[in-house]
This record gives sequence, C-alpha cells and structure tokens, in this order.
Amino acid sequence: MKKIILAPDSFKGTMSSTRICAIMEKKIKKHWPEADVKKIPVADGGEGTVECFLEATGGDRIKVRVSGPFFEEIDAYYGILRGGDTAVVEMAAAAGLPLVEGRKNPAETTTYGVGQLIGHAVKQGCNKIIIGLGGSCTNDGGTGMAAALGIRFFDRDNREFIPVGGTLDRIARIDTSGRIKELEGCEVIAMCDVDNPLYGKNGAARIYGPQKGADEEMISLLDKNLEHLAGLLKEQLKTDVAELPGAGAAGGMGAGVAAFLRAKLKPGIDTVLDAVGFDGLLDNADIIFTGEGKIDGQSLRGKVVLGIAARAKKKNVPVIAVVGDIGDDIDEVYGQGITAVMSINRVAVPFEEARLRCERDLALTMDTIMRLLKL
Amino acid sequence: MKKIILAPDSFKGTMSSTRICAIMEKKIKKHWPEADVKKIPVADGGEGTVECFLEATGGDRIKVRVSGPFFEEIDAYYGILRGGDTAVVEMAAAAGLPLVEGRKNPAETTTYGVGQLIGHAVKQGCNKIIIGLGGSCTNDGGTGMAAALGIRFFDRDNREFIPVGGTLDRIARIDTSGRIKELEGCEVIAMCDVDNPLYGKNGAARIYGPQKGADEEMISLLDKNLEHLAGLLKEQLKTDVAELPGAGAAGGMGAGVAAFLRAKLKPGIDTVLDAVGFDGLLDNADIIFTGEGKIDGQSLRGKVVLGIAARAKKKNVPVIAVVGDIGDDIDEVYGQGITAVMSINRVAVPFEEARLRCERDLALTMDTIMRLLKL
Repeated sequence: MKKIILAPDSFKGTMSSTRICAIMEKKIKKHWPEADVKKIPVADGGEGTVECFLEATGGDRIKVRVSGPFFEEIDAYYGILRGGDTAVVEMAAAAGLPLVEGRKNPAETTTYGVGQLIGHAVKQGCNKIIIGLGGSCTNDGGTGMAAALGIRFFDRDNREFIPVGGTLDRIARIDTSGRIKELEGCEVIAMCDVDNPLYGKNGAARIYGPQKGADEEMISLLDKNLEHLAGLLKEQLKTDVAELPGAGAAGGMGAGVAAFLRAKLKPGIDTVLDAVGFDGLLDNADIIFTGEGKIDGQSLRGKVVLGIAARAKKKNVPVIAVVGDIGDDIDEVYGQGITAVMSINRVAVPFEEARLRCERDLALTMDTIMRLLKL
Repeated sequence: MKKIILAPDSFKGTMSSTRICAIMEKKIKKHWPEADVKKIPVADGGEGTVECFLEATGGDRIKVRVSGPFFEEIDAYYGILRGGDTAVVEMAAAAGLPLVEGRKNPAETTTYGVGQLIGHAVKQGCNKIIIGLGGSCTNDGGTGMAAALGIRFFDRDNREFIPVGGTLDRIARIDTSGRIKELEGCEVIAMCDVDNPLYGKNGAARIYGPQKGADEEMISLLDKNLEHLAGLLKEQLKTDVAELPGAGAAGGMGAGVAAFLRAKLKPGIDTVLDAVGFDGLLDNADIIFTGEGKIDGQSLRGKVVLGIAARAKKKNVPVIAVVGDIGDDIDEVYGQGITAVMSINRVAVPFEEARLRCERDLALTMDTIMRLLKL
C-alpha cells in the first residue's frame, strides 16, 4: 500500500492549504484507492493556522469568549491537538486585522485576547503552546497578552494600566511576579517567518504599520514606543530583544513572546513539521506532494517547499512540488531534494483568469501526475 | 534499454513538429542517455511535409527546377525515402501560397510544377508517391499537374492548352493516352485532412478561394469551372468525383489526383504512420510522446494525437500527449489510448506571451515528465 504525504503551502490569493490537500487526496484516491494519505496542510501562523494543525493531527477546536482588539468581547478559538499536550493559538483569532475592518488603529488595539487564549489553554493542562504570529492589527509589543497572563505594567505614578501601542512610553515598571503559575515549565513556540527587528527602519511600526492603518506621525510614535519597551525589557526583564530577528513580527509580538513567555521564535514550516512528527512520518513514505503559489530561484531562501525537501532528502523520499507558476532558475531546486515541479497552468491565460479556475486545474494536474506515476 | 517514439504534430503558430522532436529528444537523452529514440515528426501535407518524412525515415532531398505557379522557372524539391521506392512530394513546393505572396490569383496559377516533381520521381524508379495536399495557391483541379504528366487538354476548337482555374470551362476533351508510362502500376497516395467536395457551397473555390485571393466574382467563376471539370472527369475519364470527400482539397487537387493518377485520399496521420512502419515500431516500444497545440473534447474527431493513440492502444503502449493548452472535456481522451496529457504552460500569461517562451516551456515540461517517469 502506498503511503503518500501531502504538505502544501497555501497558494496566495487562491487556495488554502487545507483545500489543496482535499483536492490532492481526492485525485490520489481515484487512482490508488488503497493509498494511505497523510494530510499536513501547512500553516504560516496567520489566519487558518489552527485549522491546519487540527487537520494534520486531529484534536479539538476550543471556543472562548475573550477581549477583542478594542477590549470588546468577542468569540475566539484555539486548538488542542490530539493527545491534549499541545495548544495552537493563532494571534489573528483575537487580534486579527479582519476584526477591525474600517477602524484600524495600531495605537489603540490590544493583544489581550491572545493572552486569554493562551491562559485558557494552559489551564486545560497544555504544556506546549504554539502561537501563530501573523495577520495582526496591533502594535503593543505583546504587552496586552502579557497583562492577560498576570504580568503587570505601571506608569511613573505607579498606577497599573494595560499598555497599547500608543501608550508603551508610559510604562515605567513591569512586574512579572503575578504571571500565572501554569506557564511555568510550559514550552512556548512562536511561528515566525519574518526577521524584522522590533524597532528602527526595518522595525514593526515602520514596515507593517501602514497596512495596519498608521500614518507617518503614528509610525514615529509607535516606533519610539517600541524602542522604549525594548529598554525596559532589557533593564527589568533581562531580555535583550534589540538584536532578535523576528522581534518585530506582528506588531512587536515577537519580542513580547520572547520576553514574557520565554518563547522560541521558529520558522512556521519547521514548527508544523515538528508538531506533526514529520520526520517519523517519512520513514515508510513513498511520495510527498508539496506546493506553493509560485516557485523560482528565490524559493531557495524559503520556506515550505524547500523546508520539506530538505527533510525528505535525508530519508530519500521523492518530493513532487505542484505549483501555480514556475519561475526561472529552478534548476537549483532539483539539487535540494525536489524530484519534479509541475505547474497547474493548463491554458495560456493571465492570472486574473487562471485564479478563477485554479481548483479545477489543480485537480486535473494531480490526475495527470497520477497517470504518469502509474506508468 | 528504453525505446521511445516521438510523434508530435506541430504546435500551430509556434513550433514545427521537427523542432518539437528535437527538444523532446534532448531532454529524454539527458535522463536516459541510452534510450533508443525514434523521431516521427508528423507532417500535415503542407509545407514541411518532405522534411518530416525524411527525418522519420532517412532518405534524400531531391532538388528539381520546375514550373512555378505562374509558369516561371523555380527551384523546387521532393524527397525519396530510404530504400528508394517511395517519393514524397509536397504540393506547396511548386504551387504554394508563399510563392505568390503579393500576387495571389487562383484563376491563373498552375500545379504544373507539382506534376513535374511527380514525373521526376517516377523516372527515378519510385513506384509509390505520397503527395501532400495543402497550402496551395491554385484552383486548377490538378489539370496543370496532369498536363506535366502527359495528359492533354483540348478546347472546343481542338486546340491543346494547359488549363488554369479561370479556363477550366474551356476544356472540351481530355486525352489520357499520353500519360507517362512510369505511372503505370505506381501507387499514389494523397495526404488529405479535409472533406470538402470539389464544388458547391462547401467546395474548393467557395471555402478556400478567399485566402487565395479570390473575390466573390472570381469565386463564382472558379466554382462553376470546377463543376464543369467534374462533368468531364465523369463523362470522359469515368471518374465520379462529385461525391468524393476531399475532392475540393487544395484547389481541387483532391479530384485531380483521384482522376488523373488514381490516387487514394488518406488522412495525413495514417499516411505518415504507415509510411514509417509505425505499427512495427510499436512492438517493443516503452512510451510514445505525441502532442499538438491544443487538446480538448473536439480532438476526438481528430487527427494526430488520437490517430496515434488508437494504434498504440492495440499494442498496449502508453501514450503521453504534451500539448499547448488543455481544453475542457478531456476525460474522453483517456478512454482512447492516451495515458496522460501534460500542458507546457508554466506561468499564467496570455498566449501572446506564452508563444514567445514555448520552446523553453516544452523543454522544461519534458524534463518534469522524465523526472516523474523515473520515480
């Protein structure tokens, strides 16, 4: 019996990785009904991350009522993976940009709800937390999250408050003594695929502020405030985030999880593959299907396809990459564990047309691959 | 050692079948250096037909000085296939549209030079002639060709003349007694992929006259003249071409070869495959690569890909079709001997862009197929 692993990234703007897995599986089963198909839709830490993990490992989606980006009550969720030890929290569920559509304001929004989700998970007994950074509307350096987990922030007059992006400069003292005890001994991993520093010209505010609604004046304020926070974290929490790549992810959440939760920042693909025990799955696998919206020479820096190929190569499992467009200079990828690259394009039409037919094209391309593999 | 047969049609407007064969062979040899690759670029009877046959079987290209479309002297050619028995004449070499660029006139042009090529071939000892119909600038019903082979045409005043499209109505008597003796016992096959009758609303003049430069008035004259010729052929040569599908091919050349040379009209693909002994080649073949510019449900009526698949199916040889676009409803082709269909499209761009990169796309697609086959 064939053992097939499906581990595609999403095709940006067209298909989610879970949808891609479903289409791939259907065509594989058509040709090899007995095949053992393992679906690992690859999450990037943004919206849909929890769903991807649950699809890959099984487990439960937990609904919790928490604080939204403007401290209003909202319904959010996280996942507890099969086994019960590991929780997956996607930041976007409680602090995502879609939640503030039409009222974006990174100076006033909070990650408090994200902290509540984490707190709920550890109180359920989870001792490993995976946090997906990405798609956030905030710029609070994770201070809101920290507050929800018992860490207290005081101003110069020793008044406690919950900081937001616009008020980080008011923090004079951070007291971690009240951090909830369930976090002790808990492993926290943050999925992070950017390497921006916390502040400065490549920092969180300057690079990601505009898409969150910040104008030039607000960006300067937010950036200055993050620098202030970095000083406090170094001085009072003995955590130097100034040089930490990824500290600027998700409005400074990278720095926040590192300082307040002692989290490790880790590329999304490695987080997913480790969480599902990918290396073990490889042992008797026959083929891996992966894919992404476009592959080219630049994919070599990256992420999903190459991350998978590197692991597969060690165990000599062939990897077929099914992609939208194939760019130039892909010869290099063949040295890195990729066996073959297939484009789903089947007619010469521009992307605006191609995107409308992508699901059907993917299905037909998988059908073709299966026919060739059966030869 | 793998035995691979390449038998692609041309991709209309982008790549010739010989070019496609060359690209395919290079990539196959890259992955299977020992492979025995048989190249059968499929000709359609038009320009390039001789080259295709020579590539498939080996043989000689024979240059002959003959009469051009306006009875001027031109350099033309035909092929004698390896073995020396079979000649391939492409009508376009002596009566092709490119020869009259800027002075198209189907009322005045002749197929006389085509007859000279045939005459030359039979005098070399060829006893089988394959004539590619297609791409002609003439509408003379093959009378010019016939005249070059010794058949004589007389008007009502018993004056001999060589008819052209505009003067067919002047023929009163046809005398075949002077037909060159080398044609006796010679098998003549005309490659013909259209089923137009000689005259009438789907006839040669009405359907193909406009692209040869005829206006409405000329079309009526040419059509009437072809009808007159049909009457004479029936009455004097006892050949009824009125109902013969393909009689209207190439300005009535279909009727002409049938009546004057007792030729058999045959689909181009079958002519090619029979001439190269395709069924014999299949016996120990591992894979056939074929292809065309576009495949879809409508290809089922057709031609190259399906013609090859039908023969391959009988001997259980897998067929991979490498095509430009894959249209809808191709599920049917899988029942007809096609194993897999691959598009060479690798990026979502419109045809105007895709055509410029088609050679590279074909090469990369072949590379991908080979990688999958090696799994």
